[in-house]
Amino acid sequence: MKLEHIGIAVENLEQSEALLKKLLGRASYKRETVESQSVTTSFFTAGDGAAKLELVAPENSQGPIQKYLDKRGPGIHHLAFEVDDIVAEMRRLKEDGFELLQELPSEGADNKLVCFLHPRSTGGVLVEICQTRTE
Amino acid sequence: MKLEHIGIAVENLEQSEALLKKLLGRASYKRETVESQSVTTSFFTAGDGAAKLELVAPENSQGPIQKYLDKRGPGIHHLAFEVDDIVAEMRRLKEDGFELLQELPSEGADNKLVCFLHPRSTGGVLVEICQTRTE
Repeated sequence: MKLEHIGIAVENLEQSEALLKKLLGRASYKRETVESQSVTTSFFTAGDGAAKLELVAPENSQGPIQKYLDKRGPGIHHLAFEVDDIVAEMRRLKEDGFELLQELPSEGADNKLVCFLHPRSTGGVLVEICQTRTE
Repeated sequence: MKLEHIGIAVENLEQSEALLKKLLGRASYKRETVESQSVTTSFFTAGDGAAKLELVAPENSQGPIQKYLDKRGPGIHHLAFEVDDIVAEMRRLKEDGFELLQELPSEGADNKLVCFLHPRSTGGVLVEICQTRTE
């Protein structure tokens, strides 16, 4: 599996986009709202072949990102790894003792199917696996 | 600047290396102790061209990683970006309002000169900039 993106939890998308643009010297190349997660995301490239950076801002007070911000504050939220077959990989990870946060893949940003692993099974790191949708 | 590695704070290096090997399907390719930071690091590749993953474990109870673990627990610790000229980049970042945690570059793992930015100036993300040493 290859590192696909790094998710960063932010409170204010406009301000965080401006800050990251100042840091990296390049602007966000797209925004996308993921209704099922109650978030809006904003993507930055981080160099040739490198993983993307995904800013994740809450759309409302309900979703998991708002809960994360309330508890931990803004900062690095998750690491996402691309896999070829997410269903097979979910089965493999479960058999290897990792704790999945969902039984089935869900729709993520960027035309992906995604599944999250519980940080208590991964040394405190929220891990996402993702597969690009083909249909 | 290009994403070079992601630092992950861990309590026990052997256990975390075994866990990450099980997750990624590949083993650590090197370990290195950084005396000035009181840490031992362990590196994993994360796919062609992707940033590396750097596990960072405290060597003793003194360094900043132990303080981080005491406060936040294990997890994603920092994002490191490679730059061509670290001194010029430190000057540029300071002028742009980022808060540097050091006045001069210091020796990091992996034959790098490094400088950290304070998370309060980067939206809660501990950012490292690094330059490969040429001598």
